[in-house]
Amino acid sequence: MNRTGIFFIGASGYIATAVIAGALAMRKGLCKRAGMVTELPRFSGLTLADPESFAFGGWDIRQTSVIESARNFFRSSQLPSEILPLIEADLVEVGPNICRGVSTNCGKAIEFISSPPAHDRDITLSAQVRMLRKDIQEFRERNSLESIIVVNLASTEPPLEERPSHASVDEFERCIEEDRYSEVRASTLYTYAAILEGCPYINFTPSNAALLPALIMLAGERGVPVMGNDGKTGETLVKSALIPMFLLRNLEVLSWEGFNILGNMDGQVLSDPENKESKIKTKDSLLPKALGYSPHSSVHIDYVPSLDDQKTAWNFIHFRGFFETKMSLQFIWQGYDSILAAPLVLDLARLSELSKRRGEAGLMRHLASFFKAPAGVEEHLLHEQAGMLFKYAQDAKQSGVHT
Amino acid sequence: MNRTGIFFIGASGYIATAVIAGALAMRKGLCKRAGMVTELPRFSGLTLADPESFAFGGWDIRQTSVIESARNFFRSSQLPSEILPLIEADLVEVGPNICRGVSTNCGKAIEFISSPPAHDRDITLSAQVRMLRKDIQEFRERNSLESIIVVNLASTEPPLEERPSHASVDEFERCIEEDRYSEVRASTLYTYAAILEGCPYINFTPSNAALLPALIMLAGERGVPVMGNDGKTGETLVKSALIPMFLLRNLEVLSWEGFNILGNMDGQVLSDPENKESKIKTKDSLLPKALGYSPHSSVHIDYVPSLDDQKTAWNFIHFRGFFETKMSLQFIWQGYDSILAAPLVLDLARLSELSKRRGEAGLMRHLASFFKAPAGVEEHLLHEQAGMLFKYAQDAKQSGVHT
Amino acid sequence: MNRTGIFFIGASGYIATAVIAGALAMRKGLCKRAGMVTELPRFSGLTLADPESFAFGGWDIRQTSVIESARNFFRSSQLPSEILPLIEADLVEVGPNICRGVSTNCGKAIEFISSPPAHDRDITLSAQVRMLRKDIQEFRERNSLESIIVVNLASTEPPLEERPSHASVDEFERCIEEDRYSEVRASTLYTYAAILEGCPYINFTPSNAALLPALIMLAGERGVPVMGNDGKTGETLVKSALIPMFLLRNLEVLSWEGFNILGNMDGQVLSDPENKESKIKTKDSLLPKALGYSPHSSVHIDYVPSLDDQKTAWNFIHFRGFFETKMSLQFIWQGYDSILAAPLVLDLARLSELSKRRGEAGLMRHLASFFKAPAGVEEHLLHEQAGMLFKYAQDAKQSGVHT
Amino acid sequence: MNRTGIFFIGASGYIATAVIAGALAMRKGLCKRAGMVTELPRFSGLTLADPESFAFGGWDIRQTSVIESARNFFRSSQLPSEILPLIEADLVEVGPNICRGVSTNCGKAIEFISSPPAHDRDITLSAQVRMLRKDIQEFRERNSLESIIVVNLASTEPPLEERPSHASVDEFERCIEEDRYSEVRASTLYTYAAILEGCPYINFTPSNAALLPALIMLAGERGVPVMGNDGKTGETLVKSALIPMFLLRNLEVLSWEGFNILGNMDGQVLSDPENKESKIKTKDSLLPKALGYSPHSSVHIDYVPSLDDQKTAWNFIHFRGFFETKMSLQFIWQGYDSILAAPLVLDLARLSELSKRRGEAGLMRHLASFFKAPAGVEEHLLHEQAGMLFKYAQDAKQSGVHT
Repeated sequence: MNRTGIFFIGASGYIATAVIAGALAMRKGLCKRAGMVTELPRFSGLTLADPESFAFGGWDIRQTSVIESARNFFRSSQLPSEILPLIEADLVEVGPNICRGVSTNCGKAIEFISSPPAHDRDITLSAQVRMLRKDIQEFRERNSLESIIVVNLASTEPPLEERPSHASVDEFERCIEEDRYSEVRASTLYTYAAILEGCPYINFTPSNAALLPALIMLAGERGVPVMGNDGKTGETLVKSALIPMFLLRNLEVLSWEGFNILGNMDGQVLSDPENKESKIKTKDSLLPKALGYSPHSSVHIDYVPSLDDQKTAWNFIHFRGFFETKMSLQFIWQGYDSILAAPLVLDLARLSELSKRRGEAGLMRHLASFFKAPAGVEEHLLHEQAGMLFKYAQDAKQSGVHT
Repeated sequence: MNRTGIFFIGASGYIATAVIAGALAMRKGLCKRAGMVTELPRFSGLTLADPESFAFGGWDIRQTSVIESARNFFRSSQLPSEILPLIEADLVEVGPNICRGVSTNCGKAIEFISSPPAHDRDITLSAQVRMLRKDIQEFRERNSLESIIVVNLASTEPPLEERPSHASVDEFERCIEEDRYSEVRASTLYTYAAILEGCPYINFTPSNAALLPALIMLAGERGVPVMGNDGKTGETLVKSALIPMFLLRNLEVLSWEGFNILGNMDGQVLSDPENKESKIKTKDSLLPKALGYSPHSSVHIDYVPSLDDQKTAWNFIHFRGFFETKMSLQFIWQGYDSILAAPLVLDLARLSELSKRRGEAGLMRHLASFFKAPAGVEEHLLHEQAGMLFKYAQDAKQSGVHT
Repeated sequence: MNRTGIFFIGASGYIATAVIAGALAMRKGLCKRAGMVTELPRFSGLTLADPESFAFGGWDIRQTSVIESARNFFRSSQLPSEILPLIEADLVEVGPNICRGVSTNCGKAIEFISSPPAHDRDITLSAQVRMLRKDIQEFRERNSLESIIVVNLASTEPPLEERPSHASVDEFERCIEEDRYSEVRASTLYTYAAILEGCPYINFTPSNAALLPALIMLAGERGVPVMGNDGKTGETLVKSALIPMFLLRNLEVLSWEGFNILGNMDGQVLSDPENKESKIKTKDSLLPKALGYSPHSSVHIDYVPSLDDQKTAWNFIHFRGFFETKMSLQFIWQGYDSILAAPLVLDLARLSELSKRRGEAGLMRHLASFFKAPAGVEEHLLHEQAGMLFKYAQDAKQSGVHT
Repeated sequence: MNRTGIFFIGASGYIATAVIAGALAMRKGLCKRAGMVTELPRFSGLTLADPESFAFGGWDIRQTSVIESARNFFRSSQLPSEILPLIEADLVEVGPNICRGVSTNCGKAIEFISSPPAHDRDITLSAQVRMLRKDIQEFRERNSLESIIVVNLASTEPPLEERPSHASVDEFERCIEEDRYSEVRASTLYTYAAILEGCPYINFTPSNAALLPALIMLAGERGVPVMGNDGKTGETLVKSALIPMFLLRNLEVLSWEGFNILGNMDGQVLSDPENKESKIKTKDSLLPKALGYSPHSSVHIDYVPSLDDQKTAWNFIHFRGFFETKMSLQFIWQGYDSILAAPLVLDLARLSELSKRRGEAGLMRHLASFFKAPAGVEEHLLHEQAGMLFKYAQDAKQSGVHT
């Protein structure tokens, strides 16, 4: 198996930095594979890319050196700072693989953090796509890579309204050619470039502009595996584990109220109501789908700078049992978002690389358990989604080694 | 299908009273079937006894009228008291079916609540068993019952040490004949009488003396279905729903600390360290079995009278992910124990009656999801246990109606 | 001492109903004086009106019978319904004292619950004031009352912008004469009528239109004691108890995030952003005033119908100590709003009656501990506010009995 | 003012290490004075010893280098490790001031952590006291100190039963001479030595053997200020802040249940039931004293190693209001014990030095707010205790500078 690379959208963010630092620290034995699903016994015997051999690169709209990003991440996640000098040389090598990204039609909150300010309106959409493809090509050549997985970890964009140009490949390509700025967002361009370059694509964000129907079709046509949306790392993960309990016990959920506070860049961008809307959509869609009815429900996200990367979520679940009696379950989740997401990103890269090697195309539905709003999947109970993944792993093992 | 009866051990307790009052209220349309698992769509098409037609009776070591018990239960569960007069006449009819129970070798805490004081040492074990069988026979005749399900809802006994007499039917019967008082407890005698009477038996308590190996063998020989131990209604239910999440995400549980406070009779008896030991055993055994390793773990139960039947449980789960980072999940469960248990008891009676009708004998392993420490079952993940139950229901449906 | 009456604005709401039902139940020995501050030993020896002898009346914009309101309140607060029949006759006697209220310029959310729909625009402000005064006069005569305390328990109005007409008595009276609808709200008219009738006035709501500066001045001139704003019953009460701890320990509060969920009429009206604004203002103003600096802070209020009158509040307090270390305190408050407010309303009525008898006029600053945003008081620590009240009680005792 | 030293009992523990590291870091501007009560504006104008100029030393029964202790502390409190090298040289200088301590009659849990094993029974009590005095004298001379404050931060000892020898100075001194081993514990000997050396003494632990009545009398006779017991840093601090709220609102506390989990050495020693008893006594005594009645109450402490120095406490408070309605308040405290305690130890040392300079002797009752069970003080409400301290500071300021 030849070398694999991961190319991040949002390469200077906490999650991408956690993935890079984690993989580099693994090489020195300074970070274990805890939190990686593909390290479960169910996956043993399956040939998967070694995370220690991954190459890393990507785009960002902020100009931060890899070292600086790593320092920020270590501080915000309260990691032991003595690890940092030990991986510093390897981090420096990643530097040349980081390119300037685009923030096309991403809304004010994202433009605000773009530094230097973006001038995406000055060049055509087609030109932007060409530029992004070139970045991928150079990453491939510079690092002699066989496969590149593009992973979207950028800040959440505002929701993109449905348009006819999203419905077919032809219409979509015409929209790009005609430079219809308002019908796409940055994430659309990244996905398009990745597919054209034959790179499996993972949308770890809730941005709906990333995996437009037309792009999923194109991925199918071009033999490129893709999947999303929105990594399931915290509150929604707990939700999807608890919902089956209420279902199996025939206890009616009356209300499910969720309050999230967090202080990282993700939180800052989500403090803008436009961007928050995307997030709340994927978070809140789970309940009626998984329960089969719609209890009262709300999801709040608040930006609390002092928490930095430590997300704290309080959920109040009101339910009704025998004799119409109301009872409650509350939970408080305190986790570091990037620490939880990073091993899943490594999993998704490994499994995407496997899919590509096995000749799969279009939606990787077996990856549903990784996402809050899994594209093309109606199953929302965590254990059922996990069953889909384990069955896939079993099948892949039985169908033999792929080269 | 002919009429079915439920005969409770602990007939004046909150749970038995909740079952009786609930079923009687159902007849008047005053209580819905919320919380009953057998009302899930998965069970439709299966011929099950109608809870509204159940007859009720049982034993208790306290002398409380059914009406008085119902009043206590309604108050403690904060139920609307206007329902009570509407079912009062039906409750009165249950009265003659309540018999004086035994508290043989049950320890001080249970003897303390026995009123009038028990004189179980004055009569032989054999005589006690004969007396208990006679109570069942009279219940059957008085109410013209086809089937009787015996359900143990009595206060938790102290653990009974393993003895050779527990290991085979012959040894066990000799122990009874020889009146070896210290080798059995009250629950042993109840189970023995039930099996001899051909009555399916459910141990909803953690008392290990109820389903001794010899008794499970005897049940097998006599064609009697039995199952236990310890109804899974609250904290442990949530535990068994959350554990898969940590497993599936490969997150190591470091510590799982549970604190339970409750104020009902169950809590009062559990405030005795001897009796508490039984409870903590079934509660605490789950974790290493379900996880496959043993995190630091403790389970505390405290008697807090002001809470009455409202159990409150706080759990603190410390877990470790990527980069050795420690994170936490806490939950607070606030539920009425009897309200949660009652519909499950109705489910277990229905499913036991079905098993009996289908000619099954010995452990009903498919009922694992109802118990904290399911006898003879190694599966501890809630959704897998539920799968066993659903598969059983499917098979039963396919094998046709039984008469 | 002659008889005292309480005249409520919002007489059919949960709190007013709790006050009425509680006082009537006290007469029969069915409700104790728990939660009444004026029953503390510090107040013994002080001649205060007997809550059991209070007459009750008031205005409402909904047409609900007193009995119906009481039934709703008993259900929502899970009170034992057997009390209700025992006070029903006394409740019926309150009926004739309930008058139709006004909802002048109160915003859509309040107009929405007005039934039948209000036609307040059809009559002049002066005419409305005359009508309200007549209601008070008739209540006084019908019940032969010496003193009447008017207590505002109506739904929260949207904030009223500051106007020149709010700044002096003359300007204000001109505004009423000239019928400047947009410069007042219903609560303004109620307060004005109360003061003109010489009735002490308590604003238990956050509506800022109730105690405009001009009205406080008028109260001073006319010898009428008044006080507000916004009864301190739950989350803010806990806040004001905890803040001194952080101050005394020199621990810096970094963030204080509060999430409130509730399901009563108050919650429903507060689900309108306009009205919520008033509430959040009084709730959120405490922190910087009490701490002396402004930590990050937010207060959310969500309407969750299944909770009915049971308010649940989660607060997350992030603070920093030695070595810049961040630590946290969380609290969860679960209380019935009306049950908490009702005894305080009785206290406020007793203390207002005492003030009137003692010849005090204008703001009753010694009542600060009862309010979230005490008018004219800069002290925000609960124990200091309590000290003000106790000192007042001491002085009143020493100055002898008043007739 | 000449130089002051702090001599710790338990010098290698987390708290002593936090005090030492904190004061040394302050000298370099690496640690602020957050959490120090004596830095509040109320104390400005008072001449207090400068924490940056303190000398440090003490006893320990474990042989750990100061550097090693500091490393353990930094790790357990998740402090930024880059600070450590910057204060390493200063830490090394403390080394020679650390002496071998005694564990006389301290119980198995403490003997277990003594390394090398203690041989305290081989030498007489008098000889031990002489040895301890010599340690203090050498510390004084080596560092040219004017004042030395002895602070007990050792692991909690089991409670010492009351004896006649504890009741008077003469009896006590005879007990030492006669070498009555079972009538004292290690903490008794340390206190005795400190008083004989004229050193103010602070018992920051719950060990009741430290401040026996005879020793308090002796301190009075010898002109030595002393105070204890048990630093109030976490759960009990919150308790003493919340209790006034229930008192002031006349809300009856029905139950107050506390669960503490922690993973440091303190937790390990407290996992021994004998030692835990001391702690629970000081923790649990507060409630009836502060409330004036005894609600149901329990305090649990569990050793959970994964938490290290991060204490987590859950408290459930059940209370009753109007109409006998039960409501609840829960809080969750997550704090680093040593981080919270260290600045208070600096405060106590400063205030003890001031008392000594002012010629005070015996109990420093004005320090009540620092302790869970303040010796000789009946006031248990935090704000009242704080008032005592502020009044003392005011008096001290007015009485002028002391030399």
